[in-house]
Amino acid sequence: MDDQEVKLLGVWGSCPSKRVEIALKLKGISYEFVAQDLSNKSPELLEYNPVHKQVPVLLHNGKPICESLVILEYIDETWKSGPSILPEDPHARAVARFWARFIDEKCFPAILRIKRSQGEEEMEKAIEEATELLKTLESELEGKKFFGGDEIGLVDIAGNFVALWLGVMLELVGITLLTEEKFPRLCQWVDDYLNCSIIKETLPAREDLLDRFRAISRWLAKNNR
Amino acid sequence: MDDQEVKLLGVWGSCPSKRVEIALKLKGISYEFVAQDLSNKSPELLEYNPVHKQVPVLLHNGKPICESLVILEYIDETWKSGPSILPEDPHARAVARFWARFIDEKCFPAILRIKRSQGEEEMEKAIEEATELLKTLESELEGKKFFGGDEIGLVDIAGNFVALWLGVMLELVGITLLTEEKFPRLCQWVDDYLNCSIIKETLPAREDLLDRFRAISRWLAKNNR
Repeated sequence: MDDQEVKLLGVWGSCPSKRVEIALKLKGISYEFVAQDLSNKSPELLEYNPVHKQVPVLLHNGKPICESLVILEYIDETWKSGPSILPEDPHARAVARFWARFIDEKCFPAILRIKRSQGEEEMEKAIEEATELLKTLESELEGKKFFGGDEIGLVDIAGNFVALWLGVMLELVGITLLTEEKFPRLCQWVDDYLNCSIIKETLPAREDLLDRFRAISRWLAKNNR
Repeated sequence: MDDQEVKLLGVWGSCPSKRVEIALKLKGISYEFVAQDLSNKSPELLEYNPVHKQVPVLLHNGKPICESLVILEYIDETWKSGPSILPEDPHARAVARFWARFIDEKCFPAILRIKRSQGEEEMEKAIEEATELLKTLESELEGKKFFGGDEIGLVDIAGNFVALWLGVMLELVGITLLTEEKFPRLCQWVDDYLNCSIIKETLPAREDLLDRFRAISRWLAKNNR
């Protein structure tokens, strides 16, 4: 598969963009990263993702693919070289899809609810809900190094959010949720995951991401959003 | 693939349950339907879907698979006989996954917002949003009989919701959204889809579903929910 044009419309600090970069690197695919400014969306982004107008968008020989989990499956089906992102067995594939969706549809909104909660009571309730969800993820790691088993796979890559963004988002409101005491397996997983060479070279440094999120928060507050 | 045990934990009037039944019938798989009472969840449902405690759950030789879109992919990957639910080409597969998610993540919540809106202004805004989303779906049908092309596929089966449940839910609040005038392609698609023999024999009759939804609404109102 030579002479392929692979472009990624993405944002440096975006968790879904980074999922796609990790998958491309795992497969050894060269790509051009085209940084997007979401406060002033490019004609390219609006053309290739007219429905959601969001990153990431993968352009493969000019054809767009949108939504990070959909893109991860596309990459796995298109480039058979390199490690598999999804397992072979249909049941194991279904289980991986289930947990990747769980992270996006349950864990992410729960963390947002903590960050946006008004008042102590609302925040406590939101923390309780998020804790329950993370306990469910914690159980899923029983007896495994990665969600994918011995090697990282779809759920680990989707789990970017838990490994890095979750902690950064909560630090902005002065909360730590993932402690060794409450979530020993998840904490070990974060450690193992962030130390994989491809992950380390792809994800932003925690402090840099925190600075960026603080700047965005200040901008949102100043502009009453 | 003989001697297989295929059970579906489902609910008669549930759109996601019906998606799975359609997929099984398309593939010619015999299955046992185990009706669930969601107001009094069975030990079987709680055992096999402990995370969401929802239908549908497919049990294949005792192994559970949850979430309707995940189950549809599992069925397509497990039983290669019969028509394909997803196309072969990776890009076409990504496009199908994109639109199936669009129906679940955008269209369904938009219709719920109309149903739950308080006051005229809120309802008008909700109707406007839902209309925009349906226009997007309408465009996707340009030049095609089904979302899947000449035959029904993943998006059509996910589109159950648009073909039947959407109209029933809105009739409860006295609204018609899908008119020939505004959505000629979607209306034609609804007609073609509901007239496919497998769909006709699987989906509930409109009036029966409406009666069931009216009974649920009365129960919810009586119990202040």
